Amino acid sequence: MNDHADPVAGLKQTLAEAARQTDQTLAEILPAPTGLHARVQEAMRYAVFAGGKRLRPFLVLSSAALFGAPQARALRVAAAIEALHTYSLVHDDLPCMDDDDLRRGQPTTHRKFDEATAVLAGDALLTLSFEILAHPDTHPDAEVRCQLVALLAKAGGSEGMIGGQMMDIDAPNREHTPDEVILLQRMKTGALFEFSCEAGAILGGGTIEDRQRLRGYARDFGLAFQITDDLIDVTSSAEAAGKAVGKDQDQGKATLVSIHGVEGARRQAEELAAAAADAVAVYGPVAEPLRLLPYYLIGRET
Amino acid sequence: MNDHADPVAGLKQTLAEAARQTDQTLAEILPAPTGLHARVQEAMRYAVFAGGKRLRPFLVLSSAALFGAPQARALRVAAAIEALHTYSLVHDDLPCMDDDDLRRGQPTTHRKFDEATAVLAGDALLTLSFEILAHPDTHPDAEVRCQLVALLAKAGGSEGMIGGQMMDIDAPNREHTPDEVILLQRMKTGALFEFSCEAGAILGGGTIEDRQRLRGYARDFGLAFQITDDLIDVTSSAEAAGKAVGKDQDQGKATLVSIHGVEGARRQAEELAAAAADAVAVYGPVAEPLRLLPYYLIGRET
Repeated sequence: MNDHADPVAGLKQTLAEAARQTDQTLAEILPAPTGLHARVQEAMRYAVFAGGKRLRPFLVLSSAALFGAPQARALRVAAAIEALHTYSLVHDDLPCMDDDDLRRGQPTTHRKFDEATAVLAGDALLTLSFEILAHPDTHPDAEVRCQLVALLAKAGGSEGMIGGQMMDIDAPNREHTPDEVILLQRMKTGALFEFSCEAGAILGGGTIEDRQRLRGYARDFGLAFQITDDLIDVTSSAEAAGKAVGKDQDQGKATLVSIHGVEGARRQAEELAAAAADAVAVYGPVAEPLRLLPYYLIGRET
Repeated sequence: MNDHADPVAGLKQTLAEAARQTDQTLAEILPAPTGLHARVQEAMRYAVFAGGKRLRPFLVLSSAALFGAPQARALRVAAAIEALHTYSLVHDDLPCMDDDDLRRGQPTTHRKFDEATAVLAGDALLTLSFEILAHPDTHPDAEVRCQLVALLAKAGGSEGMIGGQMMDIDAPNREHTPDEVILLQRMKTGALFEFSCEAGAILGGGTIEDRQRLRGYARDFGLAFQITDDLIDVTSSAEAAGKAVGKDQDQGKATLVSIHGVEGARRQAEELAAAAADAVAVYGPVAEPLRLLPYYLIGRET
């Protein structure tokens, strides 16, 4: 993907390029604010362009590249998953959910606009993600498009991300076993990572084995990522993280950090990152961005 | 559709049968509440089975019947549109939106559960509607399924229903022309009616002309229905309507009733109902339920 001598610098460059191209695609696809309903479309754009690493788009693009899928198609799937991810953040930040005023250091959508507009903008982003996938530009074969729609609906639905959010909200009211914490995190954040990686294989005509391998990569990587996020919540300052921290502890939420301690959790994240990296090494040099990503993310500063 | 001597009694029977079959399909499709996230799936079922006329499913089934589409397929599309319609009610009732405690005489979802669960249940119902459409059971041809997904996303998105809701929320802050009020209502409630009727034609392999004719039917019928709803808001009691009434006036929202007066609006609803009925008469006896429906609904007591 790049010929940089320093692998981390090369990965950063690949991440930045994926983010740039995804943003360009999103800017083209998001409806232009017009008419008496412009406000909701302004809020959609605000939420989408409030920053973010574009990690899920990167996973789609990098997975699709393993199979030589045309990038224009992969970018549409990348835009779809980012629209869906953004909706989940907008709704998650609402006063009745996490009640966050800041996201990536900027006012959350309901603080910038208002609660009703934030609910509607989230709904519209979720709806848009399926519209993008169903469009013939995403893939000429409607069978492939339907597979992507079905897979995203499962990943984002009540047996996937939304189910995980429900568990998370109920978390302070229950004692969770480590297995339950892992299940919660796999549903809440892992499901979209798994979609992103498997979608790349579907777009590029990968085999069932490819799809399973990439799901496994995403599962391990996603859990390592979540543990790292929880570690940041415990050890970082609000300024460095760009959002409120220490909330999990305050709310009594069980995490793998609260169960295994900081050192135990850190070790687990490292093992999971190594397992993920090993899984994709089989694809050779083209998989280098996917192989480096887990190591890079668990070592990130914020 | 039935051989009842009294056309209204026959229509009522057809409506009840469509509702019964749709409910059965929804009961099969909605995820069974299980695990630590059961609460969101309980809320989904609560919202869906809190009553309702199942008008949109009736439109899908009746339109599909014009073209001889297999009923099992039409029932899945009926379930999808009802899931999406239900999500819009759940979110619309939230404190930050219309702030309603009652819906069809029963506690709204956020009153029965809580706000966070209602937001998530709405999100999950919206997501489920696309999952239903993308599934091979809905139609063997993936091209047809993708058309349905794309059409529903457009109808329910920021240029359709959600855009209409945004206009509606902003309504008290603006003076609306009659054309703007019609546009608002066409987006907010008409878009899903148009989807329901056109989807029947798509399922059954109707021509472009068929699709346009049924959209026209839905447009006229939908506006007549909305005017009747606004008339109820002005003239009915809360007890008879099963929900809070007089809210449009209290909130200063422009409706065709506030613009044209009760008599003028009633006359307009009658003209629209007649135009809708005429449009589908061309299909002969099989269109009888669709032909009778607009007359029946504008004359309804509640």
